[in-house]
Amino acid sequence: MKTPAADVDIRRWSSAGWSDAPDQVVMEEPLQLSLNGKELSVVMRTPGDDVELALGLFYAEGIIKSLDEVEGVRISVEAGAHEAAVHVDASIVESNSIDVRLKGEPHRRPERSMLASSACGVCGAVLIEDLKRGLAKLPPGPQVDAAVLTQLVERLRKGQGVFDTTGGLHAAGLFSAGGQLEVAREDVGRHNAVDKVVGRSLLDGRIPLGDRVLVVSGRAGYEIVQKAIAAGIPIVAAVGAPSSLAVALAREFGQTLVGFLRDARFNVYSAPGRIR
Amino acid sequence: MKTPAADVDIRRWSSAGWSDAPDQVVMEEPLQLSLNGKELSVVMRTPGDDVELALGLFYAEGIIKSLDEVEGVRISVEAGAHEAAVHVDASIVESNSIDVRLKGEPHRRPERSMLASSACGVCGAVLIEDLKRGLAKLPPGPQVDAAVLTQLVERLRKGQGVFDTTGGLHAAGLFSAGGQLEVAREDVGRHNAVDKVVGRSLLDGRIPLGDRVLVVSGRAGYEIVQKAIAAGIPIVAAVGAPSSLAVALAREFGQTLVGFLRDARFNVYSAPGRIR
Repeated sequence: MKTPAADVDIRRWSSAGWSDAPDQVVMEEPLQLSLNGKELSVVMRTPGDDVELALGLFYAEGIIKSLDEVEGVRISVEAGAHEAAVHVDASIVESNSIDVRLKGEPHRRPERSMLASSACGVCGAVLIEDLKRGLAKLPPGPQVDAAVLTQLVERLRKGQGVFDTTGGLHAAGLFSAGGQLEVAREDVGRHNAVDKVVGRSLLDGRIPLGDRVLVVSGRAGYEIVQKAIAAGIPIVAAVGAPSSLAVALAREFGQTLVGFLRDARFNVYSAPGRIR
Repeated sequence: MKTPAADVDIRRWSSAGWSDAPDQVVMEEPLQLSLNGKELSVVMRTPGDDVELALGLFYAEGIIKSLDEVEGVRISVEAGAHEAAVHVDASIVESNSIDVRLKGEPHRRPERSMLASSACGVCGAVLIEDLKRGLAKLPPGPQVDAAVLTQLVERLRKGQGVFDTTGGLHAAGLFSAGGQLEVAREDVGRHNAVDKVVGRSLLDGRIPLGDRVLVVSGRAGYEIVQKAIAAGIPIVAAVGAPSSLAVALAREFGQTLVGFLRDARFNVYSAPGRIR
C-alpha cells in the first residue's frame, strides 16, 4: 500500500539548532458524499479507496444493507465525470466527489456520525477559499523561544493536575508567549479539548487570542488548525504529525504550525518567523 | 483537573497468563447541542465544561462572534432543567443536553464539522437503546489464540507494505480468526480506515464478517465499535485505550473488545470468552 503523502519543505529545530529539510505529511482532503445525486455531507479523509469509504460509511449508518441495493457509484473527476460500476477498482480514480446511487429508497435517512455540510467544492483549495470568506489572516506577532516551546508539553502534562489513568484522553493547553499555562482541557476528542479551551477564553473575554500558543496532544488535523485560526491563535504546536490540509491552511492564514514537538526537538511547517 | 473516568472490571493477558483487575476508561458520552431551542447535532465528548465546549464549537463554526450575542445557556439535567447564565461554572453541572440561546440570529447556519443527528436522548444508555433497533447482537464464535492476537499489530504494520513516512496515518486491518491479514487500509481518520475495510468487504461479498478480527491503531472510541458491530465483526482489538461508551456498547452487543494491544500483552474489556 502506497502511503498517500504530500511533500513539504520544513524547518527542523533541535538543541543543535535549525536545519531546512524536505519532509512528507499525510494527505487529508475533503470528500463530498452524495446519495442519489443529492449532496449529503463532507468527510475529511486521506484520498484513495473512496468507493470503499463511501460504501463502508453508508453501511455503518444503516443506509444500505447490501451491495445489491447499489445501482452504481458516480465519481466526479476534474475533467467531467466518470460513471463507475460498483466493482471498479476505486484506488485508481482520483476525485473529491462521489455519488452513490441506490436502486430504491435508503433503509434510513443519514444522521449520526455523518458530517453535515453544504457543498464545499471538489478539493482542499476550494475549501480554503470558502474558509477565507469567514476567517482573517493572522497578524505577525508574537514570538516564542524555541527552548520555551520544547517545555510546553511537559507543562501541559503537569497542568492537567491528575495523571490520565485511562490513557484515553487528549489534552489542549493555551499558553502565553512566555510559556505560562493559562487553560488546560482534556477530552476523548482532541477537537473537543480545543473547543473547551476556546470556549473558556470566550467566557473570560480573552478572544481573539492574538498572543497565545496552543499545544495539543496527538496529531494536528485540519479541524485543529481551523479552530485555532478562528480564535486568532498565531502559534499551534502538536505532539504528533500534521496533515497536508492542516499545513496548507496554516500557510494560507499565516499561522505558525509546529509538529512532532517531543524530546527537545520539533518541526515547523509554516510561518517559522514566530519562533526565535 | 480531575480525570473523567469510569470504573470497569477487565481481564488482563500477558505471557504470564490471565488476571482479573479493576481498571478505568475515559468517559465518552453524547452531548445534544441545541441552538435557540432547536436540536442541532450530537457531539461525542468527555463530560465536563460543556458550556465551554458548546460556546467554543459555535465560535469555531462562526455561529457566534462574541459572548455578547449569547442570551443564555440552558442545561437540561435529569431532574428537570437548569437555566444557567453564561458565566456559570459549567464543570459543576452534569448533563448531556445543552441549549445555547442567542439574542438575535446566528451569523451563519451551522454546517461543516458539526455532527448531524436526530435527537439521541440525554445519555449513552438512550443512545445504545437507539442503536439496538438497528444492530444485532453478535453470535458466540469464533475464538482466537491470545498468542496470535499479540502478533496482529506487527502483521498489520508489515501488511501496510510501505512504512508510514508521515507519522500521521491510522491503520485498520481485518484478520481471520487464525491471524491472517485479509484487508489493510490507512487514513488520516481512524473511522475512515474502518469504513474502507468494511466497504472493501462489502464489495467482495464478505459481509457480515462473523469470523473476523478487526485491529485498529490508536484508540477505540464509540464509532469504531459501532461500525464493527454493524459489520458483524465479533472481535475488535485496539493498540490504544477504549472509551467508556465503546466498552458499554461492546458489552451490550456481545462483542469482544481488546485494548492496549502492545508488547505481548493486552486488556479485555468485554466478552473475553472468544480469546483462548
